[in-house]
Amino acid sequence: MDEAPSLRPTAAMLAIGEELLNGRTRDANAHHLAGWLDQRGIDLVEVRIVRDDHDQIVQSVNDLREKADLVFTSGGIGPTHDDITIDAIGAAFDLPVSESEEALQILSDFYAEKGEAVTDARRRMARVPEGAALIPNSVSGAPGVRVGTVYVLAGVPAIFNAMLEAIDVELKRGPRMTVFSVIGAGPESRLAEGLVALERAMKGLRIGSYPGPTGKGGELQIVCRSLNAGVARRAAEAVEGLFRANGVEAHTVEGYVARQAAS
Amino acid sequence: MDEAPSLRPTAAMLAIGEELLNGRTRDANAHHLAGWLDQRGIDLVEVRIVRDDHDQIVQSVNDLREKADLVFTSGGIGPTHDDITIDAIGAAFDLPVSESEEALQILSDFYAEKGEAVTDARRRMARVPEGAALIPNSVSGAPGVRVGTVYVLAGVPAIFNAMLEAIDVELKRGPRMTVFSVIGAGPESRLAEGLVALERAMKGLRIGSYPGPTGKGGELQIVCRSLNAGVARRAAEAVEGLFRANGVEAHTVEGYVARQAAS
Repeated sequence: MDEAPSLRPTAAMLAIGEELLNGRTRDANAHHLAGWLDQRGIDLVEVRIVRDDHDQIVQSVNDLREKADLVFTSGGIGPTHDDITIDAIGAAFDLPVSESEEALQILSDFYAEKGEAVTDARRRMARVPEGAALIPNSVSGAPGVRVGTVYVLAGVPAIFNAMLEAIDVELKRGPRMTVFSVIGAGPESRLAEGLVALERAMKGLRIGSYPGPTGKGGELQIVCRSLNAGVARRAAEAVEGLFRANGVEAHTVEGYVARQAAS
Repeated sequence: MDEAPSLRPTAAMLAIGEELLNGRTRDANAHHLAGWLDQRGIDLVEVRIVRDDHDQIVQSVNDLREKADLVFTSGGIGPTHDDITIDAIGAAFDLPVSESEEALQILSDFYAEKGEAVTDARRRMARVPEGAALIPNSVSGAPGVRVGTVYVLAGVPAIFNAMLEAIDVELKRGPRMTVFSVIGAGPESRLAEGLVALERAMKGLRIGSYPGPTGKGGELQIVCRSLNAGVARRAAEAVEGLFRANGVEAHTVEGYVARQAAS
């Protein structure tokens, strides 16, 4: 398969939280981030989910920032005892962590408006690694932080999403892919050889083949992606032809067509 | 936080597929596996999602099998050009990959029943690393494989789940956690100090604090987990007390209570 051209920046994500690994919570942030980055011409190259474990977070952050231009973390920046991400990020960069006056002011203003005090637990959320930039949190006050190329965001989806919007302007974008989904039917094995030939023949084309979630045939989607819109379109037409050669009617839709939350 | 006792086996997961990283597909298998393993007393310690990239798969499998007793992979074992997992697993173990007579027989029987031929593309699904054990696929024929401690499963959720059921009998189980969810309301910062004190006071207790998805207060769940059912129950009672001390009524439910697919 052709790799995406290197002019698209790369990103990785680290989702932090025991609840994501014991079956309690199905992570929502990785999927949101994936689509959000793709729309901005940025390639998400890896996601990791780890526990609230200091060493595991430190090692994962350091692995991922070697692998990708940008790293996004989610989770573990709240006021409770299981919120250990800030200290782990400090350790990953070998930076001391201390209370930020600017962050404390933000928290004071936020809670003052609600007529509440900044308790010791809340005050923990003003601690940042030295030199970190703050990321505004329009939902619940307590800011995220950026240290170098690592964006440290909240795990609560509404806050995670709001923090992404807050940093949107500062991210360097790459060229967007044009995507066509060809929707047909039948087992993917019938098209396999044709798809190989097609991908080899067209430079800059990436093809994905996605059977439905039942595994028993039925709908089959072939996704054609390229930085070159003409290549993606011609590939989709060719895939429609492959379906027809198998006696199956197919139609093409621009973009992704997710049938259900399946893998 | 107390670590889970080492008598629980550990597991890691590697989900493979470009579609999981470009926004097309929201992975469903990691969440299913997490709950499935927890019910069997096995700790899922890390999940990684990577692209259909040979080197990335090889490196990730080798990292994860050093970290955990068991590794589960999903995706990339179908008949099309983007199905490269089997070769990557062979490379990770430095084992040659070749056609398995047993696997080919399974495919032949499966397609014969449907009156279809085993085409070259389908025949690819009979290739396995040397010495691999086959994992039955009750949904669509083509087997998964086990190599050492690595279980190589399909990405289509219905097939992934069926393959897990097929290997259930051979997995060594650990002791199960008892879980109570205490459901109250309000910002988690109000309970933070009490939760720290509680977790320190009770041996073998793990507490998680989970605000709702909006980030604007409202429902708050505190989850108490322990291998000792009495510890989990007494902790839940104590947490109800913490809520009441803040003027909030709370009630306790056994197990996890997921409000929505949020992180």
